[in-house]
Amino acid sequence: MADATDDFRPQARAPRGFQDRRARDLKAERAILQAVTAVYERYGFEPLETSAFEYADALGKFLPDADRPNEGVFALQDDDEQWMALRYDLTAPLARFAAQNWESLPKPFRRYAFGTVWRNEKPGPGRFREFVQCDADTVGSARPEADAEIVAMAVEGLEAAGLARGSAVLKLNHRQLLDGVLIAAGVTAPAQKLVVMRAIDKLDRLGWEGVYDLLGPGRLDESGAYTKGAELDPPAKSLISDFFGKFLNVAFDSRAHVLAALSDLGIGSLDPTLTELSRIDEALKGLGVASDQARFDPSVVRGLEYYTGPVFEAELLLETVDEKGARVRFGSVGGGGRYDDLVARFTGQPVPATGFSFGVSRLAAALRAAGRGSGEAARGPVVVIAFSEAHMADYFAAAGERRAAGVPAEVYLGQSGMKAQMKYADRRLAPAAVIIGDDERAAGTVTVKDLDLGRALSAKVEDNAAWRAERPGQATIPRAELVGFVRRILEAAP
Amino acid sequence: MADATDDFRPQARAPRGFQDRRARDLKAERAILQAVTAVYERYGFEPLETSAFEYADALGKFLPDADRPNEGVFALQDDDEQWMALRYDLTAPLARFAAQNWESLPKPFRRYAFGTVWRNEKPGPGRFREFVQCDADTVGSARPEADAEIVAMAVEGLEAAGLARGSAVLKLNHRQLLDGVLIAAGVTAPAQKLVVMRAIDKLDRLGWEGVYDLLGPGRLDESGAYTKGAELDPPAKSLISDFFGKFLNVAFDSRAHVLAALSDLGIGSLDPTLTELSRIDEALKGLGVASDQARFDPSVVRGLEYYTGPVFEAELLLETVDEKGARVRFGSVGGGGRYDDLVARFTGQPVPATGFSFGVSRLAAALRAAGRGSGEAARGPVVVIAFSEAHMADYFAAAGERRAAGVPAEVYLGQSGMKAQMKYADRRLAPAAVIIGDDERAAGTVTVKDLDLGRALSAKVEDNAAWRAERPGQATIPRAELVGFVRRILEAAP
Repeated sequence: MADATDDFRPQARAPRGFQDRRARDLKAERAILQAVTAVYERYGFEPLETSAFEYADALGKFLPDADRPNEGVFALQDDDEQWMALRYDLTAPLARFAAQNWESLPKPFRRYAFGTVWRNEKPGPGRFREFVQCDADTVGSARPEADAEIVAMAVEGLEAAGLARGSAVLKLNHRQLLDGVLIAAGVTAPAQKLVVMRAIDKLDRLGWEGVYDLLGPGRLDESGAYTKGAELDPPAKSLISDFFGKFLNVAFDSRAHVLAALSDLGIGSLDPTLTELSRIDEALKGLGVASDQARFDPSVVRGLEYYTGPVFEAELLLETVDEKGARVRFGSVGGGGRYDDLVARFTGQPVPATGFSFGVSRLAAALRAAGRGSGEAARGPVVVIAFSEAHMADYFAAAGERRAAGVPAEVYLGQSGMKAQMKYADRRLAPAAVIIGDDERAAGTVTVKDLDLGRALSAKVEDNAAWRAERPGQATIPRAELVGFVRRILEAAP
Repeated sequence: MADATDDFRPQARAPRGFQDRRARDLKAERAILQAVTAVYERYGFEPLETSAFEYADALGKFLPDADRPNEGVFALQDDDEQWMALRYDLTAPLARFAAQNWESLPKPFRRYAFGTVWRNEKPGPGRFREFVQCDADTVGSARPEADAEIVAMAVEGLEAAGLARGSAVLKLNHRQLLDGVLIAAGVTAPAQKLVVMRAIDKLDRLGWEGVYDLLGPGRLDESGAYTKGAELDPPAKSLISDFFGKFLNVAFDSRAHVLAALSDLGIGSLDPTLTELSRIDEALKGLGVASDQARFDPSVVRGLEYYTGPVFEAELLLETVDEKGARVRFGSVGGGGRYDDLVARFTGQPVPATGFSFGVSRLAAALRAAGRGSGEAARGPVVVIAFSEAHMADYFAAAGERRAAGVPAEVYLGQSGMKAQMKYADRRLAPAAVIIGDDERAAGTVTVKDLDLGRALSAKVEDNAAWRAERPGQATIPRAELVGFVRRILEAAP
């Protein structure tokens, strides 16, 4: 218990990189959660929530070799000296859960999860150290159809959350496509492959000129720092750039055309991958997913290092305007792919798995950028004005009648006068304030003040006159008609 | 990314005191969350989510005076050397939030929150270090009506969550009742008051005999340990035991009768408290809360140390049977009260506040104990059997037709044969398995296997014969009739 007589007064502030979320954001996120949950459950995925903590060794990436292994994660040592860390994603805990319970799980095991994750990174504007992710994964199926199903769910989930068809697209690539091209270019050593992938990943930032340097001997950047390149010879370099040139920024009208173009390359080592992609295409058709919803895009590089097969990226197609007024692409709203190695860390046996993940706040931001999900603060309740202490029970009864009819309502519970109570109701974005004075009580009526009208008038909306004519602003009506009056205000709201 | 060739294999296990929660529990908790949210929002409370971490000094109870101040909390030091700790309840973060944003908040500020909290305690059976709490609080109102409203919301929230009227009761006490009695008994020193309160809190365990010893010179327990007592004289001891004797285990039929009995004590220092309680009673009447839903109970001691005015405790009235077959009272499912000092820690100025809190898993357990909320695992989806790779797209289309009609459905995506697929569907608690062979495809039909029937037969339920007569077990029907067939199975489920 706090002690008001303490001399020490801590400063009231949220920790660096953490935020408080209020009604507007929470309602948007809950709407996403509800819509996506309904889709994922229809696909037969079951919910799973693992704990916030995992043993640091189970998280894998962050082995406790240092004294305090908290690079990238929030870690602490338990009483029994074991290091625990807060999860940084929902995939590592799934792998631990699957390995721990493999014998008793129905296989394939299909789960989805909404959960907070934590990253111990340098906070910055819009860069938080705590956020909510939503993942769906199928563990224990090597079938390409499992990948197709995840893609279909991602497409349907994002549409259900409010991203209208056409405003986003799911891009599919396959790690073995690039691998096949690299083999054809003579790149087989893992270290060299990594240098090539990282070079291509910088295409956005450096352009082809910079990437060529990184595919060749290396590149000197403006700061004077030199990055060693992959040292490919010119034919290898052109094979790679031809491949990307063919698919980069080219909108193919169908998945079949991309498959045909890949086949036309005549690279024999790609054949098994093309067979896999064509099975994914078939399954997507069966799932009712068209090429404008999910397309093959061999130029997607992000995630190729991590995933072991198909790679997915959900991209918002809308251009939005940044704070400086410049038009920018919103970009990725989620991603995923096949990862066949994760469970093997525990059991030694590879277990095929595939999944899709998105950040809930990022999707909410995408929806706002797309004009869905209002940026407005959440509506407040009807506020019953508290005139006199003697009649509080009656005010409560009046508020209770509204609630019983499903309209949120409250009695003002502060100690301030009429003016402050009206201001309070206005700040809560209440649709109406209800006044029950002695006259009203005697007559069985209430006086209602239309606060939306007041806000509209003070905001000087164009159709002021129309509002004024149609809406009384304030009216004294039988108590039983109050719910209908408030409903009309709520329905008329912009 | 994990590396399957690692020599090091971590053990797959959840950290001590943490648990994974699956569909059955999550669905029960979500139903609670949804029902309670609807009630709290109708009362005009807005959602708020603060971050998992707070600075340790803001949590108050756990000042960073030690090198690692993690007694009771999970704490770690940030890059900038500041100690952060995971929240152990939702009240301390609310106090920090209110103090931080006081100027810009509508006052009174009314919020509810669902959130995970963490306690760094010794884990034990059924004792977890991570759980979800739900709190509702009004900050900035000193009115007794604010307490009454919180009580009404708690009553309505618990009923909405499924605790039928009569199965639980909200008990109200007031710290100043005991304080008044103690003053009348000559107990005024805070240290002595604390010893008395702690003695009374042990009544359940020690009986009056033990409590008398603790109110007097002290008590020697069986282990030989001696606890120093409050050293009250015999008249003071009888005044206190008379007071508790009057109210303990006495079911008053109305709040008015308790008020009358308190008034009959003739202790003048209780008068302001009785006025306050009678305003709460009036407000509760206006809110439609009867004495069987919320009653005054001056014998409630729990929380009296912490709260500064009214104290609430929600108690499940049902007796349940423990694992040894003994009849036990389930006890408390939540509590709260008025705490006027919390925000003052930051600002120096007391801000009146009142609230109610319950543990979501504990309420789910109470609902199970009360026979609400099935203890059954969640139903699985309809499973479409995968016969041949060539027809996967068609299986997906068949599953998609079910989903479009709102029935969860999936295609089996493993690589096993018919028997294993049936076993899989059974383990998922699928209502039906759907078989589409060559004959069915040619005829536009499907063969459906009623898995509920199979489960009922193997469980040897009593009305086997009736089931057998009424249900075909397996049928080949037009594909369009599948949804109706599955619906009938789901509706017939016990």
